[in-house]
Amino acid sequence: MMRVPDIIRKKRDGLELSPDEIKYFISGYTSGDIPDYQASALLMAVFLRGMTDRETVCLTEAIRDSGTKPDFSGIKGIRVDKHSTGGVGDKTSLIVGPIVAACGMTVAKISGRGLGHTGGTVDKLEAIPGYRTALSGEEFSEIVNRTGIAIVGQSSEIAPADKKLYALRDVTSTVESLPLIASSIMGKKLAAGDDVILLDVKTGSGSFLKSVDNATALARVMVNIGKAAGKKTAALITDMDSPLGNEIGNANEVREAVGVLKGKGPDDLTYLCRMLSSGILSLAGCGSDEKCLSMVDSVLYGGKAFEKLIDMVEAQGGDPGYIEDPSRLGRARFTAEFTAERDGYISGVNAEGYGKASLLLGAGREKLTDAIDPLAGISLIRKRGDRVSRGEPVAVLMTDDKSRIPAAVGELSRSTFYSDEAPSVPPMILGKVD
Amino acid sequence: MMRVPDIIRKKRDGLELSPDEIKYFISGYTSGDIPDYQASALLMAVFLRGMTDRETVCLTEAIRDSGTKPDFSGIKGIRVDKHSTGGVGDKTSLIVGPIVAACGMTVAKISGRGLGHTGGTVDKLEAIPGYRTALSGEEFSEIVNRTGIAIVGQSSEIAPADKKLYALRDVTSTVESLPLIASSIMGKKLAAGDDVILLDVKTGSGSFLKSVDNATALARVMVNIGKAAGKKTAALITDMDSPLGNEIGNANEVREAVGVLKGKGPDDLTYLCRMLSSGILSLAGCGSDEKCLSMVDSVLYGGKAFEKLIDMVEAQGGDPGYIEDPSRLGRARFTAEFTAERDGYISGVNAEGYGKASLLLGAGREKLTDAIDPLAGISLIRKRGDRVSRGEPVAVLMTDDKSRIPAAVGELSRSTFYSDEAPSVPPMILGKVD
Repeated sequence: MMRVPDIIRKKRDGLELSPDEIKYFISGYTSGDIPDYQASALLMAVFLRGMTDRETVCLTEAIRDSGTKPDFSGIKGIRVDKHSTGGVGDKTSLIVGPIVAACGMTVAKISGRGLGHTGGTVDKLEAIPGYRTALSGEEFSEIVNRTGIAIVGQSSEIAPADKKLYALRDVTSTVESLPLIASSIMGKKLAAGDDVILLDVKTGSGSFLKSVDNATALARVMVNIGKAAGKKTAALITDMDSPLGNEIGNANEVREAVGVLKGKGPDDLTYLCRMLSSGILSLAGCGSDEKCLSMVDSVLYGGKAFEKLIDMVEAQGGDPGYIEDPSRLGRARFTAEFTAERDGYISGVNAEGYGKASLLLGAGREKLTDAIDPLAGISLIRKRGDRVSRGEPVAVLMTDDKSRIPAAVGELSRSTFYSDEAPSVPPMILGKVD
Repeated sequence: MMRVPDIIRKKRDGLELSPDEIKYFISGYTSGDIPDYQASALLMAVFLRGMTDRETVCLTEAIRDSGTKPDFSGIKGIRVDKHSTGGVGDKTSLIVGPIVAACGMTVAKISGRGLGHTGGTVDKLEAIPGYRTALSGEEFSEIVNRTGIAIVGQSSEIAPADKKLYALRDVTSTVESLPLIASSIMGKKLAAGDDVILLDVKTGSGSFLKSVDNATALARVMVNIGKAAGKKTAALITDMDSPLGNEIGNANEVREAVGVLKGKGPDDLTYLCRMLSSGILSLAGCGSDEKCLSMVDSVLYGGKAFEKLIDMVEAQGGDPGYIEDPSRLGRARFTAEFTAERDGYISGVNAEGYGKASLLLGAGREKLTDAIDPLAGISLIRKRGDRVSRGEPVAVLMTDDKSRIPAAVGELSRSTFYSDEAPSVPPMILGKVD
């Protein structure tokens, strides 16, 4: 018979847990038979002693199997997914999904809501009037098979162990552990059952991974997990030192995504979406990198990807008129400018600070139960590397609650840095793990 | 404002906690404001990261101050105590207390009950009919002032943080940590308010400290704590590889203690009690080691120490007739012999195994709520180093429940080792820390 203190002791002493021990612990914890205080002791031991690849794969599988897996057996085609570790202004799912669906891939995506300074795809989609992010399994499968794409919110039954473990890690300072982060992300991903998974691992001030080395290490663990589960998996390490694109906030980001799909998006965002999309096609076996990129550019600049977004929005109950003309999404009641505080170059912005400013304006939530303001957000006029003159607008703040503006301006001020010389701007893609 | 996850993170990262952080955590945990799951994460971090001397002293003080301290202000004289880390057959408190009280020291001792394979002084005293181990504070002080000695059980209000922490450590595999063990023992000791503390740190198979090095390290931490709190503190490192003396079990041990105080005890036990007693006198400033030992021998062999035991038993409601003639304590209904399984020498016995055998016979308890049989136990006829012939009795088992005998014999068999050559027997005292 397995005893929980023996499992904790083994990890405490730096030994490798067996698959049975890991399964026993996670299923007992999920059911409530193993109390929080034993789980937190094990989490701290894992934090400080680490886990082998074999243990991390087992932990991920135990998390994957902790709930009822969605039944996607009726969905046809090669199911692909892109998953980002979270950032500020990251609306790539709204762009990459339609692109790869237009290239013939199947996108049956389960997305999350935003929390803290990072946004969530589900919140962005809900800025589109009528769009339903909760579908029955049947309806979801039917839409995916008809249009090639659907994006919904996560139901609470998927990988419940992850939800419980995450809440415990948050209050016991055991969040920043590679095996725990990797198994949390991949446990949910594997439960969704995709065939191809491209991970977008963010690094920099807007990510919880502050260095390329950390991001690469996490990417490697996650790619190993995906491959061990028989999935085609790879990861790009991408820059999240400053916000992605020019728009932060839910309606703002939908508008910017539409811009990209119309061939009129900002360079950084457009480039990253093209690379992520061709990376997915390449993983799915569509041919050489060159060929995959030309497939992407063909649907992106030929309008097919945009049509795919229209199809998805319409199928999920949204009014496609808001996508045809995104200015109809509306504008917040109040706007304010944040202006350059000196002459020179913007040498850097702290993406997390910009995310927090957007949160302060009402675009995000501190707790999962908070309501959000879809029209709140920030439009960037000047970005890292741009020349500015003192008093010139750097960003426009938008909110329905005027009282929120001063705190948000203060946050932007603390998060914007200047230099006399033009700064060097790092490339968008900092590495690849496959 | 202090945040619990920040305190956990600091220790997780190997940093030193401040006195305020330690006090905040312990007082919050004692009151129930800080939940078990945060305490267990911190305990695991302490287990794996350790604590500095300064942190360990603070933790001990926080444990000491977690409850209502007994009011011993009315007690006169130099209050001395001896504390053993626990062993098998360890009845030294029943002997050393009367000796040093007969030498003019004040012994106002709060003792524990036995748990698992180790016995407890309170259980031993309760083998004496009438002896009351629960006294009011006033009664306790009055007896101490009149006779120089009283020994009672621990009231639940002393250092409640220790009780809570210990229960949590037990189920989260965070027991064997020097700072946690040291603060647990010394927190309770310091709450009792003695002026002089001599620690008897056991090492060997009957102790949780299997090596002299570990025992010495723990002793050093505890002596530091005692000194930091302004107490005269020292430690002897003593052998607990085989049981101490020839008797295990509550009435058995009272009988053997009386034997020592009458000058007729076994050599190992008598020697250790003389060393512990003279060590206490020396710490209390009674003079040179030689002088202290001669004071001890004078009261021990002159009968004054035995009279002191009689006085204490009588004052605490016990019938001194049982001490004058300990055969009146009675004999268990059933006895059985454990005999040598081969010719040769007894090369070693596992003291923990002998303790477990005694527990199986009914002398101890698995949980603090279990009842115990005062007459159950084991008398050793042959010990480590003795020559034996196959079939010759090595030990006599005693119990009121015949069905318990086979398992206990099995335990003794597994715990007794033989050799052809006479084994070397280590000295009783293996080191000293002061």
